[in-house]
Amino acid sequence: MRILTLLTDFGSQDAYVAAMKGVILSLVPHATLVDITHEVSPQDVLGGAFLLATCWRTFPKGTVHLAVVDPGVGSKRRGIVLFAEGHYFVGPDNGLFSLALADVEKQIVAVENQRLFRHPVSPTFHGRDIFAPVAAHLLRGEPMHEIGPQVADMVLLPQAEPRAMGASEWEATVVWVDRFGNLVTNLPERLLRDREIEVAIAGEKIQGLSSYYGQVPPGSLVALIGSSGFLEVAENLGSAAKRLGAGRGTRLRVRVSR
Amino acid sequence: MRILTLLTDFGSQDAYVAAMKGVILSLVPHATLVDITHEVSPQDVLGGAFLLATCWRTFPKGTVHLAVVDPGVGSKRRGIVLFAEGHYFVGPDNGLFSLALADVEKQIVAVENQRLFRHPVSPTFHGRDIFAPVAAHLLRGEPMHEIGPQVADMVLLPQAEPRAMGASEWEATVVWVDRFGNLVTNLPERLLRDREIEVAIAGEKIQGLSSYYGQVPPGSLVALIGSSGFLEVAENLGSAAKRLGAGRGTRLRVRVSR
Amino acid sequence: MRILTLLTDFGSQDAYVAAMKGVILSLVPHATLVDITHEVSPQDVLGGAFLLATCWRTFPKGTVHLAVVDPGVGSKRRGIVLFAEGHYFVGPDNGLFSLALADVEKQIVAVENQRLFRHPVSPTFHGRDIFAPVAAHLLRGEPMHEIGPQVADMVLLPQAEPRAMGASEWEATVVWVDRFGNLVTNLPERLLRDREIEVAIAGEKIQGLSSYYGQVPPGSLVALIGSSGFLEVAENLGSAAKRLGAGRGTRLRVRVSR
Repeated sequence: MRILTLLTDFGSQDAYVAAMKGVILSLVPHATLVDITHEVSPQDVLGGAFLLATCWRTFPKGTVHLAVVDPGVGSKRRGIVLFAEGHYFVGPDNGLFSLALADVEKQIVAVENQRLFRHPVSPTFHGRDIFAPVAAHLLRGEPMHEIGPQVADMVLLPQAEPRAMGASEWEATVVWVDRFGNLVTNLPERLLRDREIEVAIAGEKIQGLSSYYGQVPPGSLVALIGSSGFLEVAENLGSAAKRLGAGRGTRLRVRVSR
Repeated sequence: MRILTLLTDFGSQDAYVAAMKGVILSLVPHATLVDITHEVSPQDVLGGAFLLATCWRTFPKGTVHLAVVDPGVGSKRRGIVLFAEGHYFVGPDNGLFSLALADVEKQIVAVENQRLFRHPVSPTFHGRDIFAPVAAHLLRGEPMHEIGPQVADMVLLPQAEPRAMGASEWEATVVWVDRFGNLVTNLPERLLRDREIEVAIAGEKIQGLSSYYGQVPPGSLVALIGSSGFLEVAENLGSAAKRLGAGRGTRLRVRVSR
Repeated sequence: MRILTLLTDFGSQDAYVAAMKGVILSLVPHATLVDITHEVSPQDVLGGAFLLATCWRTFPKGTVHLAVVDPGVGSKRRGIVLFAEGHYFVGPDNGLFSLALADVEKQIVAVENQRLFRHPVSPTFHGRDIFAPVAAHLLRGEPMHEIGPQVADMVLLPQAEPRAMGASEWEATVVWVDRFGNLVTNLPERLLRDREIEVAIAGEKIQGLSSYYGQVPPGSLVALIGSSGFLEVAENLGSAAKRLGAGRGTRLRVRVSR
């Protein structure tokens, strides 16, 4: 079982992802490669971090997650490998792993062992020449300590936590808009469980928490706990993002009562 | 040989498809996963049904086809597994399988055995928590009768059949527009074989049936039997959809003579 | 190890690619399929040729590269199989392989043995009915000479070579714009090594060759050798294509001095 996931902002029109896969399959011909997505907006580290955080736990232990959203490629930013809950993570140390792994026990090493790289290393494509071969070597069983020295911590994103506005109200933020126009916020399920809520967003109000989209009439707004465990605002059979003119960074108020 | 295809309307910008793949590979690490497409328009059951119908037979017997275009997720719509001609199909019972399997002998069971689900089941993501694990269990050899009770029939789409307008004329409908702007209609090859035809669409007329696009000059319209076995209207080296302002639902008249 | 790459202009919204994969997996159930891209602009043979050229060498020997950008499908254009440096290439003989293989020693056969095709052959989908099964047979070890007779040469694209404008200046052309808006030119690294350069493009001038994007301030233009070995013009943390209103075919002047 040699599963490797890929997440990048390289898009699907260029051959950058294919070049990385060629490098990996040259080292591990029987690897199973799974694309998480390559449609992260160019250089959107937060977007990549969010997507990785929502899906990595569905993969089996032993999976290597290779993630490259890397505006600092070629500069002195560090490459890292992380090991947490049986999974490996490989990529630039710029916050990309901080939503997935902030609260998880982990080991971290810096990527330094040039013996594992593809040579010559292009200064603009560490994905192909450094991160892909390092990920492939991990998949072949290379131990962490061969990759580089242990380091104490990784870069953390200024992770938009919801703000408490008194005892019964939160200011939350939209951190992701999915393809259906559903607005995913940073307000986690545990703050809302078993409570009555009222959501105020972009001049509209939503009463109560539903279980699924179709619980309200077509065209109505609905608030629910989305599949990644956060409060979501959606329109049944429509796009809440369009309807509300809302997007990443939009703020909403959530009043909570028993 | 453990092949599983995926067709959804989840797009490639989110991590929803990856989450399904993670669940499947956790249960069947050696599965071969093939994306049919995830770019079905959001909640376009007919579009998904058309695409599945055009390609499932190219896969080997034993393949499991997992399809999730599911506007009713969370509501009382049923999940089903179908078995037909050696292939398995898993997804919501909303018509998604009706173009592929309307005229095919098949067994159907309802998806009910919660032992096979991923828990807790998110009410908004049955793709990850119900359909993906059920498909994976089928791939591992779980028998149909373990999934749920046999049911008599599936939901059928109001399948746009061509309308006979007298003995020598059909009113057909465009059911799909492909990336090249080719207009695929619902008029099957068997109604046109060995006949002369005249197609009238959007104020233009096309005489005769060609074999391939390049049989007419660049920029000319051409009528032919497309690769999925239906009448298609195309523009050689151009887009018939743009040229004619036509799209899904556009009607055309086809006169047939010997 | 049975690795097969696919490159087409079929996009990801239709089921054409899936149909090809079904055909291949029916013949070689354990094949590892890797998408290079299916987002080549419709019928853009040069674009497909460029992408294939930039990544094929990263794959291991024995890989079969199946490429279908085929505006002439159904007409008399020839299908070919090439063997070069341990890799196989399958597709239409229209220049698609000429950037990858122009200067490489190779064997070429015409695709003629109908025993290897899928029948009936659709005149509009040789990708599914001719090239996919031929590629699958190669993957199973079918020898080249079983596919068809040897031929002397392939179609070459009028490959935009940079033009020398005297001893110290080149006129280069943008041959690809990647997702980040980086402008990839046809001026190869070997003409620039160890030299000072000045690039003039779209009314702007860039002094010197950098190693990576972040070597200049955000928003500044930078000239560097890109990861595919050609001169590239980029904007650090921005899009050079947008900033300069430049695209494929845009010319630039490069002055070279020691």
